[in-house]
Amino acid sequence: MRFLRRLSCALPALVILCSAAANADTVSDLAAKAKTDSWGYDFLADLTTDIGARMAGSKSERDAAEWAVARLKKAGFDEVHIEKFPVPYWARGAEEASIVAPRTQTLAVAALGHSVPTPPAGIDADIVIFKSFQALLDAPEGSLKGKIAVVTQKMVRAQDGEGYGVAVRTRVAGPSEAAKRGALALVIRSIGTDNHRIAHTGVTLYNKDLPKIPAAAISNPDADLVERMAAKGPVKLHLKLDSKTTENVDTYTVVGELKGREHPEQVVLIGGHLDSWELGAGAIDDGAGVAIAAGAAKLIADLPQRPKRTVRVVMFGAEEIGYASDAYEAAHSKEAGNIVIAGESDFGAGRIYNAELPAGSLNSPFAKQLTAAILPLGVDMRRESSSHGGADIEGLHEKDGVPFIDFGQDGTHYFDIHHTADDTLDKVDPAELAQNIAVWAAFTWLAANSDVDFRAQAASAGTAK
Amino acid sequence: MRFLRRLSCALPALVILCSAAANADTVSDLAAKAKTDSWGYDFLADLTTDIGARMAGSKSERDAAEWAVARLKKAGFDEVHIEKFPVPYWARGAEEASIVAPRTQTLAVAALGHSVPTPPAGIDADIVIFKSFQALLDAPEGSLKGKIAVVTQKMVRAQDGEGYGVAVRTRVAGPSEAAKRGALALVIRSIGTDNHRIAHTGVTLYNKDLPKIPAAAISNPDADLVERMAAKGPVKLHLKLDSKTTENVDTYTVVGELKGREHPEQVVLIGGHLDSWELGAGAIDDGAGVAIAAGAAKLIADLPQRPKRTVRVVMFGAEEIGYASDAYEAAHSKEAGNIVIAGESDFGAGRIYNAELPAGSLNSPFAKQLTAAILPLGVDMRRESSSHGGADIEGLHEKDGVPFIDFGQDGTHYFDIHHTADDTLDKVDPAELAQNIAVWAAFTWLAANSDVDFRAQAASAGTAK
Repeated sequence: MRFLRRLSCALPALVILCSAAANADTVSDLAAKAKTDSWGYDFLADLTTDIGARMAGSKSERDAAEWAVARLKKAGFDEVHIEKFPVPYWARGAEEASIVAPRTQTLAVAALGHSVPTPPAGIDADIVIFKSFQALLDAPEGSLKGKIAVVTQKMVRAQDGEGYGVAVRTRVAGPSEAAKRGALALVIRSIGTDNHRIAHTGVTLYNKDLPKIPAAAISNPDADLVERMAAKGPVKLHLKLDSKTTENVDTYTVVGELKGREHPEQVVLIGGHLDSWELGAGAIDDGAGVAIAAGAAKLIADLPQRPKRTVRVVMFGAEEIGYASDAYEAAHSKEAGNIVIAGESDFGAGRIYNAELPAGSLNSPFAKQLTAAILPLGVDMRRESSSHGGADIEGLHEKDGVPFIDFGQDGTHYFDIHHTADDTLDKVDPAELAQNIAVWAAFTWLAANSDVDFRAQAASAGTAK
Repeated sequence: MRFLRRLSCALPALVILCSAAANADTVSDLAAKAKTDSWGYDFLADLTTDIGARMAGSKSERDAAEWAVARLKKAGFDEVHIEKFPVPYWARGAEEASIVAPRTQTLAVAALGHSVPTPPAGIDADIVIFKSFQALLDAPEGSLKGKIAVVTQKMVRAQDGEGYGVAVRTRVAGPSEAAKRGALALVIRSIGTDNHRIAHTGVTLYNKDLPKIPAAAISNPDADLVERMAAKGPVKLHLKLDSKTTENVDTYTVVGELKGREHPEQVVLIGGHLDSWELGAGAIDDGAGVAIAAGAAKLIADLPQRPKRTVRVVMFGAEEIGYASDAYEAAHSKEAGNIVIAGESDFGAGRIYNAELPAGSLNSPFAKQLTAAILPLGVDMRRESSSHGGADIEGLHEKDGVPFIDFGQDGTHYFDIHHTADDTLDKVDPAELAQNIAVWAAFTWLAANSDVDFRAQAASAGTAK
C-alpha cells in the first residue's frame, strides 16, 4: 500500500493530497523510530556519565559543550558550532547549617545561586520564622535587625508545575526583602515537593539598592524541624557559606543545524539548556531537554531528505543563572524574523500530555496535521491558550515576536528532584523520554516541512503581539 | 449492653465466660483509644525534635535516655530506671568520596559504622568492581592488592524486608573479605532500596585476624554511575574517612514498668531501641519502635487497674552497633525464666499485617483471643512459624528460651530510609503508628492479663527450644 501510494504521488495532480499523506507516513515512521532508537537516551546517559554537572561558566560546562559538538557532528548535523558570551561564574564552596539552640541538629543546606558568602566563621543568630512569603513582606522595616529570617512556605505539587511560580518568589526576591527589614541572612524551605534531606538550590536576584545578605535553602524535613522547634520557643541557627563569584567567564551555547532543502534561511528552532546546577548531574534539568531536542532532530537527520526549512537545535548555556534568553535574543534579533517558530524542552522527561500552538493557529491546517500526529502519542491539543513558553526563548518571543510552541509535560514529580544533588540519570524513564522525542520529532518535521506562517495566522486572528 | 454484662459478671458462675468478654471489651477500648490518643506520636515527634540523632555512646543518647525517663515517669509508669553498659563509641567525622578518573564526579558517601579512618589525605586508587558479593568472594587472594574494591550488588525490595538479609552481608562481612584479597578499602552500594543521593550507613564487623580497611557506602545513583563508568574503562576513586573510636563509653537502656497486680514477678517485655544512627533523627529506626512500645503500655497504664502481670517497656541502647541483645541477656539471664514473652518493634511504623505466636501456641485459647483482637485491626495470624524475632531480644530467646511474639509490618519502603540522613519524622504516618500501637496494646494487655504459659505450650507441642 505504502509503495503504491508513494508511486502515484509522482503524478502532479495528486501532489498536494499526497503531500499530506506522505507527511503522515513520515510522522508515523518518526514516532515508531523514536520508540526503538536509543540515540536520545544514550546522549543523556553519556552526558551525565562522561561529563556530569555543568555549572554555567565552569570548565565542566565548556567540556560539555565540546562533547555535544562532537556528538552532533558524528550524528550527521550539517552545521555545528558554539556561541560564547560572558557571565558571572558562581562557585558554591563549603556550606553548613545547623540549629544551635535549643539543641544542636544538623540541617541539609544549599546556598542559593548568586548568594554572597557569610563571614568565615559563619553567622549565628536567633531566627524569626515566617510560614509564608507574604508574612515576610508584611513585617515592618527594621524588624529583622540582627536576626536570620526563615521562610517555610511550602510548595504545592501540581501536574503542570504551577506551584513553582508561587513558591519561587521566596527564593528569587526573598533575600532582598529580608535585607530590607534588617536581616543578617535568609534561610528558606527548599522550593521543592519532596521530603528528602536534600536541599534545592536555584538562583536568587539581589536588589542592587539593598545590602546583599547570604541566602540558603534547607531541605523540607529540616524546615519541618525548624517549624516544630520554633513552635516551642526561641531557635538559633548557624549558617556558613563560602561561595565565590568570578565575573566575565565564558558560557557556551551549542548549535546544530539540519539545513532546509528549499528555505534554508527559515528556521524551526528547538532546544533545551546544556548548563545545570552543580549539585547533581543535570539529568532532568536539563540534560533531558537537550537530549529530547537533539534526539528529535537526529531522527529527522536520518530521513532520506532534509525538510524544506532548517531545523536548528540550540543547547543554551547559562539558563540556570538567568542569562540565556537575553543573550540569545541579543545575538539573533536580526534573524528573528526568519525563525518560524521556537520551542524549548525544560521540564524533565515526564510524558507530554498536551500541546499549545501559537495564538491564532488552532484552526489552521497545520494544527489539524499536528493534532492527528500527536494524538496517537497520547497528546491532546489544548483548546485554550496560556502564556507558557520557556525561559530560554522568551526573549525571542517577547522582543521579536517569534511564535512559540509549548508541550505540557507531566511534572507531578519534577520538583522532587529539581535543582538538587538528586538530579541523576536514574530519574529519567527511557520510555517517557522516547515519547517526548517522538512528539518533538513529529512537530519539528511537520513545521520544517511546511510553509505554515504562524505570524500571519496570529495577525489574521487579531492576536499578533 | 456493656453495663449489664459487667454487672452480671459479679456472679461467680459467670466469671470465666465474663473474663473473656471483659477482655474483649478492654481490647476494643484500647484499640479505639489508640486511634485518638496522640501520646505515642507525640513521644516520637518530641524525641526527634527535642533530641534528634542518638548514636550509641554519644551524649545525645544519654540525653535521650534522661528525656525518656522523664517522659515515662510523667506518663504514670510505676517504676522507671536506666541500665548502663560500656560500648565502643564510634564517631563518623568528615568523609568524602569522588570519582577522580576518567572524570571527577562527587559521590554521596557514608562510612560504615566501625570503619577505620583512611590516612589523612585519603586513598586514591583504581577500582575493581564486583556486581555481587559472591563475585568478590570468588576473587583470588591477593587479587585486589593496591585497589579499592567496589561491590554494587542491589538490594531487592520486599514487603517483609527479606532483601536486607541477602544484601547486608556485603556491608557486614565485605570489608574483611576485601582485605583478605589485598584491597586498600571497600566501597559498597548502599544497602537500601531508594534511588536518592543519600548513602546508607550501618555497622560492619571486622575479622580480627585480618587488616582493618576503611569501608563506606555510596548512594544508589552513585553506584549506578560507577557501574556505567566502569563499563567504559578504568575508574579511579578517592575516599577520605575520618572516623574515630573511643572504647568503654556508657550506653543507656531505659526501662519502664507497670507492675502486675497479681504476679508482678512475671514479665511481658516489649520494646524497641532508643539509640540511632547519627545521620538522621532516628524516626523510623527506631524512634517509632520505642514510641509504639511505650505508647501501647501508656494506654494500658491509663486503664482503671493494672493487668495481672508486669508490663515492661525496654528502650534498648546500642542496638545499631550490635551490643544490645547480649548485654541485656547477660544482665537479665537470671530472671529470664520469669519473662513470659518478649517482643520488639524495630521495623519502622509501617502497618502491621500479620502476627506470629511462639511455637506451639497457635491453637491455644490465647491465640484465639489474640486473633479475634487483631483481625479488626487488619492483622492476620500467621499459620506457619518463621524464625523472626528481633535484634534486641534474640539473646534472651536463644540463650534463655524466652518465647517471643513477632508482628509483621509492611516494610516495602522501610529500606528507602533505613540508616540514612533521611530518617526523619515526616517519614512516619501517624495513622500507621496508631495501628501499631493498637496491635501492641491488644497483645500486651491480653498476655499480661492472662495466665498463658507459652513455654508449656511449646513443650506440649514438642517444639521447646
